[in-house]
Amino acid sequence: MANVTIKDVARDAGVAVETVSRVLNNRGYISQKTRDKVEASMKRIGYIPNSFAQGLSKKKMDCIAVIVPHIVHPYFSTVISELENVASERGYKVFVYNSGGDKNKEKYLLKLCQSSFISGVLLFSSEISARFLKSVQLPVVLVERGPVGNSVNVQCDNVTGGGLAARHLISKGCKRPIVIGTANTEGMPGDKREEEFTEVCARSDVDVVSYRASEDQYASLDYHAEIEKALEENPGCDGIFATSDLIAAQVIQICHRRNIRIPEDIKLIGFDDVPLAGLLTPALTTIRQPIHDIVKCAVDSIERLSEGETTERNIILPVELVEREST
Amino acid sequence: MANVTIKDVARDAGVAVETVSRVLNNRGYISQKTRDKVEASMKRIGYIPNSFAQGLSKKKMDCIAVIVPHIVHPYFSTVISELENVASERGYKVFVYNSGGDKNKEKYLLKLCQSSFISGVLLFSSEISARFLKSVQLPVVLVERGPVGNSVNVQCDNVTGGGLAARHLISKGCKRPIVIGTANTEGMPGDKREEEFTEVCARSDVDVVSYRASEDQYASLDYHAEIEKALEENPGCDGIFATSDLIAAQVIQICHRRNIRIPEDIKLIGFDDVPLAGLLTPALTTIRQPIHDIVKCAVDSIERLSEGETTERNIILPVELVEREST
Repeated sequence: MANVTIKDVARDAGVAVETVSRVLNNRGYISQKTRDKVEASMKRIGYIPNSFAQGLSKKKMDCIAVIVPHIVHPYFSTVISELENVASERGYKVFVYNSGGDKNKEKYLLKLCQSSFISGVLLFSSEISARFLKSVQLPVVLVERGPVGNSVNVQCDNVTGGGLAARHLISKGCKRPIVIGTANTEGMPGDKREEEFTEVCARSDVDVVSYRASEDQYASLDYHAEIEKALEENPGCDGIFATSDLIAAQVIQICHRRNIRIPEDIKLIGFDDVPLAGLLTPALTTIRQPIHDIVKCAVDSIERLSEGETTERNIILPVELVEREST
Repeated sequence: MANVTIKDVARDAGVAVETVSRVLNNRGYISQKTRDKVEASMKRIGYIPNSFAQGLSKKKMDCIAVIVPHIVHPYFSTVISELENVASERGYKVFVYNSGGDKNKEKYLLKLCQSSFISGVLLFSSEISARFLKSVQLPVVLVERGPVGNSVNVQCDNVTGGGLAARHLISKGCKRPIVIGTANTEGMPGDKREEEFTEVCARSDVDVVSYRASEDQYASLDYHAEIEKALEENPGCDGIFATSDLIAAQVIQICHRRNIRIPEDIKLIGFDDVPLAGLLTPALTTIRQPIHDIVKCAVDSIERLSEGETTERNIILPVELVEREST
């Protein structure tokens, strides 16, 4: 199959090559009739615009980058998949970057993105500073992190999520719940989930014991030691709120090894509702993040910022309880 | 933080701007001494090359694209994560694409990649034809698919993997094993795993019953109906070889609902050894694909093909048995 060029399009449409180029680059006046004719020819003969040359003329590549700590973490792989779906519908390519949660690597990657003329970045970072963000000359949307400086942030309603988890465990009769959360780093969404969980339990006179994994555990995505410790220190525990489905999967494993039955002995609820939640045994009750909507809002914000428009600075999207077998 | 430009590098290194540009673009003769001086300045003052302009001058972007049926499938998200690790070490960016397993979308994406001046593509496709691949004017490496035409293919040793699974179940005393595999599409790696499994069992006078999911089930990644059918029709089954860890996760769920204990009543072995395998309860015995090495070989091949060098056409990498709790 020979490569179809704009010369072929021009010949097919009966217009000058320059006219096709102007349609492609949206440059100068072209009548709607001519534009329709050129676009019909492109479609008919299978022309795909050379996005590299297009990027050059617009001084912008139609690319969105996403920087996450761990691509393999089930929450982030779900985000990337949804982003590819949303972005490709709008004609963007998607770049992916593992930061390993390293603040210096995040900074390096943001500067790299800036020098690549991309349209914008979805950044999952708990540590980036307002000052650094301000220095980056491209649209950056923070996801799952409270607003930093005047950056744009999109997140799910972590507070309501924590409350829903508490009310659900209480309604199932739990009197001695524990929370097992991620690393104790300021700005992690798990913090807000835990705070509200504890608050709602307190209102029902239910005491909560909280555990947080270390940064090393978050880096390795292995929470077994923290979970063992929590169960060891709380033999009467009858409910667990794991602030991510990934932690919940590991709670199920430890309980199984200790002959603790879920949900009979301990009720377990997670957070995220990534595909993993539905693949566990027992299938996991969890709080669903609207990942598709989060990604869509982030891309909307990047588009508005690219056009120099204003956009809402702190977007919070609703969560919901998904009841399965673990509670 | 102001943007560092090549003018700043030139000033710092005490050379002309044109010299810095030539170092960046590897153009014309530059003495090693001058090159070292310029590179040291770039590092010192934190200059990041404008990869867009670099791509223009080389007529190539330093990007590798990966086209997979489903980014959220745990095998593919692991591949993408490993690819980002391997690629970023060598200075490549990674584009990701969901094809949904749609042959026409795969073709469209390959043409899009070609027009984007990227370095090469890792393609996970069971249906693309040799004729179409030949028409694509950029390095494409097929992963997990037998050689098509004279394309380059990298895959794990699926045959040995199927044999290892059979010998392991037999050694654990299984007499009536079944295989549950993915869609019955020619060229899927699961086929070779199943064939060798059946072959090795036959040599030990063990009969095997095989089930294959429909294409719809593969598209939705939901194999529950097929697994229910397999268990319903084979009440005496004492061993299951699931040709992916994702299928194995769902076997565990169905067995749990039917009060079939794993490993006491049925021994279960998967394939892939993605992180999911270690997160299941019981943790899954499986055949490990060397995903890091597969990705590294694929990137090596893309680099060789880009330079016009020859490369091995059919690369097969070793697998190994990972024994956990399910057998």
